[in-house]
Amino acid sequence: MRTSIATVCISGSLVPKLHACAEAGFDGVEIFEPDLVTAYESPEEIRTLAARLGLTLDLYQPFRDFEGVDDDLFADNMRRAETKFQLMQRLGMDLVLVCSNVATATIDSDDVSARQLRALGELASSYGVRIAFEALAWGKYVDDYRRAWRIVERADHPNVGVCLDSFHILSRGHDPSDIEKIPGDKIFFLQLADAPALTMDVLSWSRHHRLFPGEGSFDLTAFLGHVLAAGYTGPLSLEVFNDVFRQTDVRRTAAHAHRSLVWLADQVRRPGVSDATHHLTEITPPQAFDFVELRGSALDEIDLVLEQLGFTFRGRHRTKPVRLWSSGRARVILNEQRGNDRPTHLAAFGLEVADADAALARARELAAPPVFRQTHAGEQDLPATAAPDGMQILFNDNGPDPRWLDEFTYGDPGRADVARSIDHVNITQRWQDFDEAVLFYQSVLGLESEPPREVASPRGLVRSQVMRTPDGCVRLPLNVEPQAEEGRTQHVAFTSDDVVGLARTARERGLSFLPVPDNYYDDLRARFALDEAFVAELRSLDLLYDQDADGGFVHFYTRTLGDVFFEFVERREAYDGYGAAADAPVRLAAQR
Amino acid sequence: MRTSIATVCISGSLVPKLHACAEAGFDGVEIFEPDLVTAYESPEEIRTLAARLGLTLDLYQPFRDFEGVDDDLFADNMRRAETKFQLMQRLGMDLVLVCSNVATATIDSDDVSARQLRALGELASSYGVRIAFEALAWGKYVDDYRRAWRIVERADHPNVGVCLDSFHILSRGHDPSDIEKIPGDKIFFLQLADAPALTMDVLSWSRHHRLFPGEGSFDLTAFLGHVLAAGYTGPLSLEVFNDVFRQTDVRRTAAHAHRSLVWLADQVRRPGVSDATHHLTEITPPQAFDFVELRGSALDEIDLVLEQLGFTFRGRHRTKPVRLWSSGRARVILNEQRGNDRPTHLAAFGLEVADADAALARARELAAPPVFRQTHAGEQDLPATAAPDGMQILFNDNGPDPRWLDEFTYGDPGRADVARSIDHVNITQRWQDFDEAVLFYQSVLGLESEPPREVASPRGLVRSQVMRTPDGCVRLPLNVEPQAEEGRTQHVAFTSDDVVGLARTARERGLSFLPVPDNYYDDLRARFALDEAFVAELRSLDLLYDQDADGGFVHFYTRTLGDVFFEFVERREAYDGYGAAADAPVRLAAQR
Repeated sequence: MRTSIATVCISGSLVPKLHACAEAGFDGVEIFEPDLVTAYESPEEIRTLAARLGLTLDLYQPFRDFEGVDDDLFADNMRRAETKFQLMQRLGMDLVLVCSNVATATIDSDDVSARQLRALGELASSYGVRIAFEALAWGKYVDDYRRAWRIVERADHPNVGVCLDSFHILSRGHDPSDIEKIPGDKIFFLQLADAPALTMDVLSWSRHHRLFPGEGSFDLTAFLGHVLAAGYTGPLSLEVFNDVFRQTDVRRTAAHAHRSLVWLADQVRRPGVSDATHHLTEITPPQAFDFVELRGSALDEIDLVLEQLGFTFRGRHRTKPVRLWSSGRARVILNEQRGNDRPTHLAAFGLEVADADAALARARELAAPPVFRQTHAGEQDLPATAAPDGMQILFNDNGPDPRWLDEFTYGDPGRADVARSIDHVNITQRWQDFDEAVLFYQSVLGLESEPPREVASPRGLVRSQVMRTPDGCVRLPLNVEPQAEEGRTQHVAFTSDDVVGLARTARERGLSFLPVPDNYYDDLRARFALDEAFVAELRSLDLLYDQDADGGFVHFYTRTLGDVFFEFVERREAYDGYGAAADAPVRLAAQR
Repeated sequence: MRTSIATVCISGSLVPKLHACAEAGFDGVEIFEPDLVTAYESPEEIRTLAARLGLTLDLYQPFRDFEGVDDDLFADNMRRAETKFQLMQRLGMDLVLVCSNVATATIDSDDVSARQLRALGELASSYGVRIAFEALAWGKYVDDYRRAWRIVERADHPNVGVCLDSFHILSRGHDPSDIEKIPGDKIFFLQLADAPALTMDVLSWSRHHRLFPGEGSFDLTAFLGHVLAAGYTGPLSLEVFNDVFRQTDVRRTAAHAHRSLVWLADQVRRPGVSDATHHLTEITPPQAFDFVELRGSALDEIDLVLEQLGFTFRGRHRTKPVRLWSSGRARVILNEQRGNDRPTHLAAFGLEVADADAALARARELAAPPVFRQTHAGEQDLPATAAPDGMQILFNDNGPDPRWLDEFTYGDPGRADVARSIDHVNITQRWQDFDEAVLFYQSVLGLESEPPREVASPRGLVRSQVMRTPDGCVRLPLNVEPQAEEGRTQHVAFTSDDVVGLARTARERGLSFLPVPDNYYDDLRARFALDEAFVAELRSLDLLYDQDADGGFVHFYTRTLGDVFFEFVERREAYDGYGAAADAPVRLAAQR
């Protein structure tokens, strides 16, 4: 199936947009009229450039406020349309989007609109142009795709069909299954956009907050299924108005956009869709974190904290300037090879997967960059890719006791395990990377999204969304902090069965905890009817506590070293959260 | 009347917030609970600090999810409340905000809620605490202030009253006039917030987009009138949740917030309000721009452009390194005194006002900083203040031919006037200055807001709001460009009666116009049925054209010099716009 994208989705001017779309792998583009109007290149130059880049010009858009008008206005609208048909001839284009009248309609009649569209179709046919009529969600009279189709059916002209846009249909809550009643050859075009679940006027929602498929809450897989069941064979095209994508690097956004369509086409897996394109390699979600890897200028500080926390030093790597700490299945690699000029930061994490080669193959099919790491003879080669923020992700299918552990020289001196595993890895994202990261972790790794939430910090609200496996064995909270253009804190949380005991021992070893205000404990007593002795113990150890209907949560944070800090969490019963409501604000304030 | 502000309005942690509020002139604060919970200072320390700063602690807030619950939960809620009353004793506070139940209410009954609030009032009275019950706009059962009052009336306890919040009432469209039916002494507290006209869920609207009075679209003057008519005598307090104010400098935001209350109190001008505070000096809106003043490292480029445009050189100032160009009443001062290390920029503008001393007095009453400029004997002293972005504003009440003109040595060589006046001055604002600028221009200068709009640019949507006099003689479009943290373009538009002729002459003199794409003119032909010869003339001169029902608009832009460019506009008939829909995007694309 062919892929296309509206030029309005991405940033900059028309010529660089065309280059970026071609490079990302799109087959065609929709020309968004203002991009052409503001371009210095003539229509003929644009046509020639697109041909050279191998891009078809699929849809000219939008032509506004045409139907449902009185005779005088209709005559002027026909005049307007004819100038556009002439322009389309110069561009070598044959399909124009006519969206339902918002501003000038005065006649609420299927019959009048059908007659006017039929006349438009007749004029268009003389220019070899076809009309794709679309119901805008905020159209004055026509705001439902079913009515748009009724009008097109009544217009009964071979050059008049409908354009379907997932946003205009799903934002209004209209049932998309009726799409199957439209003959496939009368669906002239298909525009796809996802969106977050927001309750706001559809115009603002559409203009600022559309997302690429897989990043929001619309069921686009089902939607596309209906369109394909109707027999549609045209391109899958993206039309996404988003304040972020309009500002970010055009080549990167185009690649990001293309990934969303590849993923969506694979989700549908219907004959004619994923057959014609490329089936993605199937994977199962990762089973656990294999390790985290830190780099930076002061890794000796990390050695000290891990020692105080009770981790076991496993020695140095046989061939690389790398050392390992572990406790249970929680493993921390300190890598001196690169990144010494930066504060301590999380550079990579490993995932335990069923099939590492399959994971890498899928990543490459989704245009995630491969990462190459030096491996000497006899060492385990972990296939790797990189997330949008540059984080490296390594795949290990060697089970919970991987072979690479043997490459460290000190063996296992048998210190008792204080940790069980890595519970979650929390990565602060730049605002411009956030949506791309959500798509990446969903499409490449097969993680799911928890509902987004907001956490109070002294500098404003932190936007947070957790990407996770259904069983919670791998959890990646992604945060966007206000004004955190560059300063990016990351943290690694380890699970323990006895956080209180661990904290007591670590304190004796001199560990520096993130100090928790006394007022927090007074508030804690108010929130939950807790045993006074328990609160006193929490207070004495700077431990935080949360509970909900499913269980309790005891946890603490270390101080930040470079850009990194550690957390230890004890999940009691079935507690599945992160202490986001009351504890995260305390952490954010204390860290400031 | 006393002024107060919730600590949640401003950025940072509690102690700096208290200092900032005191410095800005507030009489008291509302303690937002999370600010206390995340503070390391004890309640006693906060109490002592506030006393030293002269701040009263007016309201502890919020206490959530209390009423309308079953007996078990009610018992736990009473326990929760008692811990808070104990805390309030340590703080020396006697008023707590109880907001209507959002999460745990299961009983939709005035009677049950009244009984539970009465019991709470009885418990509170033993701690010397009073309860201010508030209907949240999204309360589960109680979401209307009139119902909150009905419940309080039925609770019938001296320690139980209502809290009124303008956002919760006006966002729902509830008629505020029924406030006058509530006895003034049962209105225990008043929270004020403005907000832009948005259609979205009230919770998100409230949490992100509240504004200080005067910055949004609520009629707070009328609202406050009802509250005062009811006999309320407590403080005017601000509760504004806003993503911007939570991030900006705490002292500046506090000063900005205080200005909004001073302005609002003056708007109401009722006995007991503006009597007790300070009546603002009354002013009338400015009558015209007196001049604009440019500074920068390459002012000779500006000389050349003004010469090419047909302005008259009026020579140098008698005592200062300053020169003047004029045409009609459009005057441009080039000031070499300061700013030579920066690109050419707009540093000041003058306004013709009825009473310059009154204008300055009002600015000072609203805590706008005074600006002092050197004046030698016999020279006209123009009182001046500065806008939030540092722009200096000088007041001249010497009529359309001010005395200061005589301080320039070259007189008037009598070149024919090509310009009539300055039409508008367009200033790109940093996103964090925007709302403050709206309040500044409204409260200090007496300008009005046009409805905000969005303009497409290659880097995203530009937020634009025009501040103007009703007659349009002074217009200040304020723009926020995406990612324009520092890069700030400004432009000055002059009016002319013959832009076509002026452009032709300027072109002969070698003026470099902002080039307009050919595609713009093709689109122009489609949009309006224009005479072909007229379009050809526009095209040959790089002129832009717009029209609406009121008239036509011919205009052009020069290229940008430093951070500044010029525009010439010809308003035909009653055209009152700026070519924002189609022409501004062409300009923004061309400038990129």
